Amino acid sequence: MIAEFISVGTEILLGNIVNTNANYLAVKCAELGISNYYQVSVGDNEERLIQTLKLALSRSDIVILTGGLGPTQDDLTKEVTAKVLQRKLIEDPHTKERITGFFKGRNLKEVTENNWKQALIIEGSTVVDNNNGTAPGLIIQTEEGREKTSGQTPYGNKVVVLLPGPPNELIPMFEKNIAPFLGKLQPGIFYSEMVKICGVGESKAETMIQDLMAGQTNPTIATYAKNGEVHLRVTAAAKNTKEGKLLVKPIVDELKKRFMTMIYTTNEKENLEDVVVSFMARHHIMLTTAESCTGGLIAGRIVNVPGASAVLGEGFITYSNEAKQKYLKVKEQTLKDYGAVSKETAAEMAFGAAAVSGSNASLAVTGIAGPDGGTKEKPVGLVYIACTLNGKLSVKEYKLNGSRQKNRDYTVIYALDLLRNTIMEEYGT
Amino acid sequence: MIAEFISVGTEILLGNIVNTNANYLAVKCAELGISNYYQVSVGDNEERLIQTLKLALSRSDIVILTGGLGPTQDDLTKEVTAKVLQRKLIEDPHTKERITGFFKGRNLKEVTENNWKQALIIEGSTVVDNNNGTAPGLIIQTEEGREKTSGQTPYGNKVVVLLPGPPNELIPMFEKNIAPFLGKLQPGIFYSEMVKICGVGESKAETMIQDLMAGQTNPTIATYAKNGEVHLRVTAAAKNTKEGKLLVKPIVDELKKRFMTMIYTTNEKENLEDVVVSFMARHHIMLTTAESCTGGLIAGRIVNVPGASAVLGEGFITYSNEAKQKYLKVKEQTLKDYGAVSKETAAEMAFGAAAVSGSNASLAVTGIAGPDGGTKEKPVGLVYIACTLNGKLSVKEYKLNGSRQKNRDYTVIYALDLLRNTIMEEYGT
Repeated sequence: MIAEFISVGTEILLGNIVNTNANYLAVKCAELGISNYYQVSVGDNEERLIQTLKLALSRSDIVILTGGLGPTQDDLTKEVTAKVLQRKLIEDPHTKERITGFFKGRNLKEVTENNWKQALIIEGSTVVDNNNGTAPGLIIQTEEGREKTSGQTPYGNKVVVLLPGPPNELIPMFEKNIAPFLGKLQPGIFYSEMVKICGVGESKAETMIQDLMAGQTNPTIATYAKNGEVHLRVTAAAKNTKEGKLLVKPIVDELKKRFMTMIYTTNEKENLEDVVVSFMARHHIMLTTAESCTGGLIAGRIVNVPGASAVLGEGFITYSNEAKQKYLKVKEQTLKDYGAVSKETAAEMAFGAAAVSGSNASLAVTGIAGPDGGTKEKPVGLVYIACTLNGKLSVKEYKLNGSRQKNRDYTVIYALDLLRNTIMEEYGT
Repeated sequence: MIAEFISVGTEILLGNIVNTNANYLAVKCAELGISNYYQVSVGDNEERLIQTLKLALSRSDIVILTGGLGPTQDDLTKEVTAKVLQRKLIEDPHTKERITGFFKGRNLKEVTENNWKQALIIEGSTVVDNNNGTAPGLIIQTEEGREKTSGQTPYGNKVVVLLPGPPNELIPMFEKNIAPFLGKLQPGIFYSEMVKICGVGESKAETMIQDLMAGQTNPTIATYAKNGEVHLRVTAAAKNTKEGKLLVKPIVDELKKRFMTMIYTTNEKENLEDVVVSFMARHHIMLTTAESCTGGLIAGRIVNVPGASAVLGEGFITYSNEAKQKYLKVKEQTLKDYGAVSKETAAEMAFGAAAVSGSNASLAVTGIAGPDGGTKEKPVGLVYIACTLNGKLSVKEYKLNGSRQKNRDYTVIYALDLLRNTIMEEYGT
């Protein structure tokens, strides 16, 4: 089956936002074995949206429209879809109730009149609840239930899916409702497993598996670089999940042999902080963070994981030298002799954080994120990360060369990975 | 003039890469006053690319194709464009020489045979040198020089631009050659200003300016919701920047009247943390953060701003009750009587953070980010934010209902906005 994505929104055409929804849908459809031939972005313009939808219906089996479901006048995806499919818009009492509950629960703002527009649905459609916003999703199967609707469907047996534009609304709805629905439509699947790696760059990783990637047909390996990480996706076209797993397994096993402990997970949904938190929980490790240039981002990442309170009781943001001395007991002499951005200061920060808090582990970072503050000896991008576990210390030096934001994002990943490796060395996996 | 972008590459349709080129081109065309009605992504497939290009030529004045100019067999953008425009491909000696120089300059092994494919250009086209790769860009004006070419141009007077897909090749070529060329084609510009608001939802904001938005033609107002913020873009089509500013000014002035201090900036490039840091710097405010559920994200956001060290010396992550008592001197009795997530605890955290650090300002957060930890009295999403400035306290209660991640993102924005409002109340703007 062939899916086409239509991203609706003038903000895309003006360049105000990057269209990440099309990318997300592309990944998901590939996983489901659904082909994608066209992705179209079009503005909130009735005539152009009508033409775009008609063209899509004429050449694709599944049309997924995203955006333009909001409460305002310029949101017209639902109205245009109803028009093209020759169906009526009717009020959905369930959605109306859900919207009322949404506003009540939030207790922040009153329901304004225009929000009721979002309770209108296309006749004969299946409503997909939105747990993170007001606009519901809709699924229309043009042939199914046609007799119950008022109009004709001149495009044959097609599936039209309408989803809200904000990714934090779209993604949960797709995962929970749309993917299972589409999965049933498409016989055969693409089965894929993800191998996530830290501690090696993308081109190095590719070199390490060049022989596996050369002439690959089924399964295939695709590499994705992501701030300090490399993700390898192994994908097989198969009749079913069981066959897919069998096809993918030897490749994943080979990747495990080659990358060994650089692999932090083979679970698609797990990210580095999840792994680190579960490692800590398993070994009863209590961590204290001490952050200078990352200013709280490492702790913030750990606290992303539900239940993080079991492994992180406290953390320090010691941006100034005074704070490093006052809270972490970094010696004045150390700061004088080696500077705030040094292996020695990082080590004292880490030991200090553990001692002050009574934690058995600590993670400390000091560096120059830029754009200012660099010198010839200590350029922008110089970062020291120190980790202590049960009184033992590891310190690493990094020389990064991205923007301020990128340097800090990389530092967070490298710090979490240092902690992961330290735990593995101490306890085995 | 209307431009259409065609992004060519199966890697986009498989979701291997996010199509940032379309976003880049959208921003640039908007700046040049060139409208963009459609963005299409299509794979490396001859028939579908032909259909896509023909459709684009039938409805747009300028068609910019990106990607598919590489040396391999599946790169066919140039071949397809030549076919559709009925022109020949001819070898360009200048490009051949440049490619040779490119390989020599990089000390790469000899030029492989397939690289010479990149020295072929479309008859009658203008070659745009690529200083960061081998594939040249091409500009074809279908009417200009038509008599010199072999074929017909059935699409009228159109401009077709071919650019390589890698952003590090495309962007420098666009900036240096394509933008100046397109600028000459398009008389007039789009001038826009941005009004960024905190403290009101999107639909409420729209209700407040419904009369301004109804029947708007030039300038127009567009609203964008962004985690706890609303951005209003006022755009005017004008002969030049001076005229654009004159057209936009009365609308922006009216927005300022209506939203008043909810507006935190009218500078497109400035975000909330930039404003807060510059407010603090102006009034010599030194801030200390005390974060529970946000676990360092507020400090992390402030430290995003270069030069943040002047206004943030230190911060605490006090996830556990013990840490709240130990570092922030929150009373045991307060925790017992009101709980960790309470107005009273938030207030003591804020006062404690200021007292311990000797800062004149503090920002403290305690809440239940979810998904666990909620009760009937204190549900997930309940958050208290406390701010002290010169010994005076403000505390606010919020009831959020997003995911763990979204609740924390909103909390960061609301905390920064509370600090901004507190400073404004104390010092005027």
